[in-house]
Amino acid sequence: MSHHHPENDPKYIGLNVNAGIEKPDSVNADSVQRFLKKGKRQVHSPDEFVEGILSGNITILSQAVTLVESSKPEHQKVAQEIIIKCLPHAGKSVRLGITGVPGAGKSTFIEALGKKITGTGGKLAVLAIDPSSERSKGSILGDKTRMEELSSDSNAYIRPSPSAGSLGGVARKTREIIILCEAAGFSTIFIETVGVGQSETVVHSMVDFFLLIQIAGAGDELQGIKRGIMEMADAIVINKADGDNYDKAQLAAAQFRNALHLFPPTGSGWFPPVMTCSAIENTGIQQIWDVVNDYITLTKENEYFFNRRSDQARYWMYETINETLRYNFYHNHLVKPRLQHYEKLVLDNGMSSFIAAHELLAAYYKSVGNE
Amino acid sequence: MSHHHPENDPKYIGLNVNAGIEKPDSVNADSVQRFLKKGKRQVHSPDEFVEGILSGNITILSQAVTLVESSKPEHQKVAQEIIIKCLPHAGKSVRLGITGVPGAGKSTFIEALGKKITGTGGKLAVLAIDPSSERSKGSILGDKTRMEELSSDSNAYIRPSPSAGSLGGVARKTREIIILCEAAGFSTIFIETVGVGQSETVVHSMVDFFLLIQIAGAGDELQGIKRGIMEMADAIVINKADGDNYDKAQLAAAQFRNALHLFPPTGSGWFPPVMTCSAIENTGIQQIWDVVNDYITLTKENEYFFNRRSDQARYWMYETINETLRYNFYHNHLVKPRLQHYEKLVLDNGMSSFIAAHELLAAYYKSVGNE
Repeated sequence: MSHHHPENDPKYIGLNVNAGIEKPDSVNADSVQRFLKKGKRQVHSPDEFVEGILSGNITILSQAVTLVESSKPEHQKVAQEIIIKCLPHAGKSVRLGITGVPGAGKSTFIEALGKKITGTGGKLAVLAIDPSSERSKGSILGDKTRMEELSSDSNAYIRPSPSAGSLGGVARKTREIIILCEAAGFSTIFIETVGVGQSETVVHSMVDFFLLIQIAGAGDELQGIKRGIMEMADAIVINKADGDNYDKAQLAAAQFRNALHLFPPTGSGWFPPVMTCSAIENTGIQQIWDVVNDYITLTKENEYFFNRRSDQARYWMYETINETLRYNFYHNHLVKPRLQHYEKLVLDNGMSSFIAAHELLAAYYKSVGNE
Repeated sequence: MSHHHPENDPKYIGLNVNAGIEKPDSVNADSVQRFLKKGKRQVHSPDEFVEGILSGNITILSQAVTLVESSKPEHQKVAQEIIIKCLPHAGKSVRLGITGVPGAGKSTFIEALGKKITGTGGKLAVLAIDPSSERSKGSILGDKTRMEELSSDSNAYIRPSPSAGSLGGVARKTREIIILCEAAGFSTIFIETVGVGQSETVVHSMVDFFLLIQIAGAGDELQGIKRGIMEMADAIVINKADGDNYDKAQLAAAQFRNALHLFPPTGSGWFPPVMTCSAIENTGIQQIWDVVNDYITLTKENEYFFNRRSDQARYWMYETINETLRYNFYHNHLVKPRLQHYEKLVLDNGMSSFIAAHELLAAYYKSVGNE
């Protein structure tokens, strides 16, 4: 329900910056060690990493990304040094968020649009945010398989979602990977999300342009979209506008256009267009890329582009703080075992929400002060 | 901008439950003292308050509400005792949120619908959430004046918004006032909001039914609505469907109907209807009240009503916790003076959002541990 905000769900917790006890994710520590070695014993220094990244060395970029994804404190330390040194070289790409319901043909679309970009000299990095999946090496392979052409394209870099972890943790890592990719000279970054729960919001808060991919259905085109997603879109694309499906796609586009007209305008001065394409037949793709570029031109002219980026950087600073505050509270050894009891009291009308919160907070601050 | 979530704005802070240092609001301490006296020296005990409230004594209810609104710790202590004792008697009303752009005729509408309710034996409390205003006694009078008939109706209790304070603080107080009003036997509670910023979301999270009032404009009916509000509505009413405006109102209703059809269904199994009315001519009002009652019947049958209430109680427990955690962090003596510096570093690309957050958190936890 929309009023049950996930930040209030103790299960929705972020990384524990302070205590450094974030659960190790499935990035294998051995493989990280292996990546860190040069030859037999030597390990890249942060400066060597940065040098490699700035020269566009994809192998070194991949190794740095693996460090960012690792939860080992010693890897994080090196990763943060690399990020700081890459920051002055970052920020020059166009960051494009891509979401859509399963079955909308996102991979085929990304491949079609991606080839268009690399075909005209652009360098493209494709990242993903998918906190729900426990990706193994098998599915990393799967990721590359489903974008067969792009993955063998020397101007494209495909990196699957950081594996298991909280949405907040995955989001932080993805933001840092964007910095590394930009420093490595990628001019366009796609951030794909499978569209589960809050992940679209997270992607929206780290991109310049947010693209929603839909397909024509049986009159209930909008059923599959989470509430609020449509309002975040800078453009909607109806994919699979081909063959027997062509007319239905046009009709769906008209419906979406009507819906979008009813929304208040965004602060950018941009009116989100609705387009159709067929990723598989490669039609309508250039028009979509043109629209993205029109948007970038408009919003750079009116400064919205830069303001949005600043807002996002600020947002992520505060988001990291707030997430950590929540994490440390809900994982506190005095709070955690009491939480359910108080929640039950509140639900049974035995205690007001406010008093329950108050008592848990008192226990927490007492415990923190005593540590 | 939608990606700049207010929770991340240090200015959007809640009450400080823990340290009890919430800024005094404009409820005058003397007037509270005066309320607390019976005769020359005696002060109501919490039990006397509860008894008075349960017997439906409006004067005593008002005094208890004043205690809830006070920020004095000694008043809060009494208020909390009263609330706990009223809790078992609360929860039996229908809670109706009412919002709409300024000029939509909310007051006239509330008066028309309110008279319909009290006219058939119902008891109605009208509360408001308006954190932006610094209401003086003058505007409390204003509030009663703009609902002239209701304010002289013995079955209606009109109480303006708790005065200045954070949205979170105002929300908490309003939720507690709902409990008192319900214990006093009010069968319907209106919670009105003027529709600035986040206040609709807050109202939505404490009501059973959320009503959006609109008027027909010049083809841009939806321009005045904040993004996301329409999706929260359980019904939309186009007011001022009278005289020359009648046809325009019907047209606007049709447009809203189209827009609502495009939204995914809510979890309640309810499809938000769009209705027209003229509050001033008293037409269409009964139909709106019927719709509210249809909704209550449906959602009580399918249990959604009770689940939503439970979610709300849980939400407010976590919201209070999270707000307090944020408040204490952002007002910490080590954090507060450093915040702007770090924000600037992040905006100038001199530091990653994550590292800035990390350093502020380190300073905070060091300070909390040392206190």
